[in-house]
Amino acid sequence: MSDTATTQSVLQRTETDFDAGIERLFDLLRIESISTDPAYRDGCREAAEWCAAHLRESGLQAELHETGTADKPGHPVVYGHCPGPEGYDGPHVLFYGHYDVQPSDPLELWDSPPFEPVIKEDGHQRIVARGAVDDKGQVMMFLEALRAWKEETGEIPVRLTLLLEGEEECGSVNLENYLRDKAKTLKNCDICLVSDTGMWNRETPAVTFSLRGLSYCEAILHGPNMDVHSGLWGGCIPNPVNELVKIFSGLFGPDGRCNLPGFYDDILPLQDEQRQAWKKLDFDEAGELAGIGLDTNAATGEAGYTTLERMWARPTCDINGIYGGYMGEGAKTIIPSYAGAKISFRLVPNQDPEKVTKALETYLQERTPIGCTLEFKRHGTGIPCMVPPDLPEMKQAREALQEATGVEPVLMGSGGSIPVVGSFRTVLGLETLLLGFGLSDDRVHSPNEKFEIECYRKGLRTHTLLLGKFAGLA
Amino acid sequence: MSDTATTQSVLQRTETDFDAGIERLFDLLRIESISTDPAYRDGCREAAEWCAAHLRESGLQAELHETGTADKPGHPVVYGHCPGPEGYDGPHVLFYGHYDVQPSDPLELWDSPPFEPVIKEDGHQRIVARGAVDDKGQVMMFLEALRAWKEETGEIPVRLTLLLEGEEECGSVNLENYLRDKAKTLKNCDICLVSDTGMWNRETPAVTFSLRGLSYCEAILHGPNMDVHSGLWGGCIPNPVNELVKIFSGLFGPDGRCNLPGFYDDILPLQDEQRQAWKKLDFDEAGELAGIGLDTNAATGEAGYTTLERMWARPTCDINGIYGGYMGEGAKTIIPSYAGAKISFRLVPNQDPEKVTKALETYLQERTPIGCTLEFKRHGTGIPCMVPPDLPEMKQAREALQEATGVEPVLMGSGGSIPVVGSFRTVLGLETLLLGFGLSDDRVHSPNEKFEIECYRKGLRTHTLLLGKFAGLA
Repeated sequence: MSDTATTQSVLQRTETDFDAGIERLFDLLRIESISTDPAYRDGCREAAEWCAAHLRESGLQAELHETGTADKPGHPVVYGHCPGPEGYDGPHVLFYGHYDVQPSDPLELWDSPPFEPVIKEDGHQRIVARGAVDDKGQVMMFLEALRAWKEETGEIPVRLTLLLEGEEECGSVNLENYLRDKAKTLKNCDICLVSDTGMWNRETPAVTFSLRGLSYCEAILHGPNMDVHSGLWGGCIPNPVNELVKIFSGLFGPDGRCNLPGFYDDILPLQDEQRQAWKKLDFDEAGELAGIGLDTNAATGEAGYTTLERMWARPTCDINGIYGGYMGEGAKTIIPSYAGAKISFRLVPNQDPEKVTKALETYLQERTPIGCTLEFKRHGTGIPCMVPPDLPEMKQAREALQEATGVEPVLMGSGGSIPVVGSFRTVLGLETLLLGFGLSDDRVHSPNEKFEIECYRKGLRTHTLLLGKFAGLA
Repeated sequence: MSDTATTQSVLQRTETDFDAGIERLFDLLRIESISTDPAYRDGCREAAEWCAAHLRESGLQAELHETGTADKPGHPVVYGHCPGPEGYDGPHVLFYGHYDVQPSDPLELWDSPPFEPVIKEDGHQRIVARGAVDDKGQVMMFLEALRAWKEETGEIPVRLTLLLEGEEECGSVNLENYLRDKAKTLKNCDICLVSDTGMWNRETPAVTFSLRGLSYCEAILHGPNMDVHSGLWGGCIPNPVNELVKIFSGLFGPDGRCNLPGFYDDILPLQDEQRQAWKKLDFDEAGELAGIGLDTNAATGEAGYTTLERMWARPTCDINGIYGGYMGEGAKTIIPSYAGAKISFRLVPNQDPEKVTKALETYLQERTPIGCTLEFKRHGTGIPCMVPPDLPEMKQAREALQEATGVEPVLMGSGGSIPVVGSFRTVLGLETLLLGFGLSDDRVHSPNEKFEIECYRKGLRTHTLLLGKFAGLA
């Protein structure tokens, strides 16, 4: 059999085995692995064991690695490995996914029970269940591709390590430590592969090539040691809310730019080539804005950039929450004792989250007026990531997507941040391929989460083909 | 008996009857007349009836006037009246006070039960109970002065109307309507007299001659129809918190001044004479600031004015509360759907609260960015009041204070607002004398509220003397 014929026969196997694979996915979806809620601790372990058993059936070694401490135990990581065929000289692939899910409340908004998966028809067949697309369904696309290779050819064609995390939905608190502990082994990998993102649209597949970084902080201005009467003290002492508003407003410059000193210094200019490519994507700006109750006039931001450019390639400065004084119904005449704001910056390649955090702290300290004291909290950072466009695995991924779907894939940016991708880079020195098959209306984290069958099939086919390509078989 | 001798004999009567009067005050303090809490509805009526009975014992007509509507009944107003002696040609006095009190929680912070009044010794004898100074004790100074006149001379020496309100501590929601209903009768009065304010200090009595006005509003900026992901939408649409902060910061100008257009236009300049008089008061700025945890560096505000001048004679612009987005622990990466702020202006004579409110609304509307909509709420206004210094009753009040205490009274401003004083002026066309005997550490509205016996005595003596003066007897 030729190499290409081998891959094609495995692809064929995914079709004949398709319904059985969906049944297996349903088994996994029935397990209530809500990681943030201690009541579902056993469910998390059950899901981990279920995944390990599935991997063993495909011929991998698989075990559960405990995380956390005796005092504060975490949920286990499913660790899987296979050395690949004798003489394998392709990349050692590190696949990452997560078996835990978000809580399902509010339950009354679900049309069917969240842990009783069903297939519904609405123009497009879709699996409805908590975790359908985030991330059990996307993990299973890869696991079923492995299974098809094993059943059709008797072996997994690549050298592979898998990490299936159980704490992605509750902050991945133990993952970075886990990566550091296993770094010596994991550094043998060559490339990471993650399926936890989306397609450009139902027809068009995508590789997500960039993620924004993050610096998230909180500032609290303290004034008098209690709320005081605004009739007595108004106009006589600094009002912490007045002062907070004055200081924070200074961060917002003209033309939608951020005034934080040095904020733009390290950013590389957006390339014309990139801008041209994105312009061709025909982003449905009006449709997306309508989805959140706004019209196209509301598409405002940094001057000189389109919405897609702002979202994928430009940094932001956003107050995510603000509080202080009387927040109930009606009126209360006080000068508040304190006022605070949560603020985050989305960052783009070459910006350093630590440097931005420090610049903010200095900025706030320098402007804190006499009579107020500043409390500054750091809520975390994430580095911005961009996959080098000339990475050979990127080329293979794009080919696999094109062959699996018949449509040329889009190179997508992402405005969001996936901290684990930063950890792979900083702890293990690895780049990450983000091949996801979700749609923007999949109701991730919301009631009636769904994953469309056609998207699942495209992911299953893509992973099957990509494994062949890594193995030099297609 | 000479006129002066008559007044002196009544004064003497207040001393011989002093302890019995304190016992009567204790009876009133034992009645749980918490107006804001429906559970104490009967207590409010009981207190009203108790006051009416006391007035009848002093020879006045007294009755309860119901307030509110059938749907939303209010607490009754105690209405008292006596025509005064035959041929009386002094002022017709309208005395206003309130029999309701604040809730007593947190109960655990009281050293003795709030409705079991006791006299405690702490260098100065003080009555400790809810309502001791606000306002039952201060009302009783006047009622006991009436009683002494009646018992000593057989009659009340002046033409007098009393209104004892039962809703002062829950917003006086029915009072203005009540005044309008009774305006025809009440307009026959010549001057209002209120004892609900304070002394300059324990030794020095005061007439409060000015009250600041108020405009209290709330502005809410609405953006997307739900909280949205800051990774997706940050930098691409207006963030309601960012925009709120930008708009509101524009209200704060240089030198501690308010940038609202026209804000200072109608204010009369502070007279040098006034400033000199206040300078002599030797205000304990450091002591007052220390009481709220600040040092004297924190005494900042409008440039060119002292703290007392800022408090009594200059307007303010204060955000009393602000809210929006994620206000819990930790971090949440959202662009909030809305953000709001409560803002109030303290106003000084000649400023028009309606004009200020409208100027704010216009200011905010003009600055609301595309993509946001403004919701504007009015939470009420109060006009600034200043008693004309040449009012003959003011002169009589100062004389009564001086004679009752042996100390020259201070003409005090007040940074606060007492809306009823505005209503007396706007609805009835009456000026108000504010003769109060509280101290700044009386813990009004707080646990262990107290009223010092010596302050009560000074008030009782002052009212006794002032009644004599109104009657032309002293």
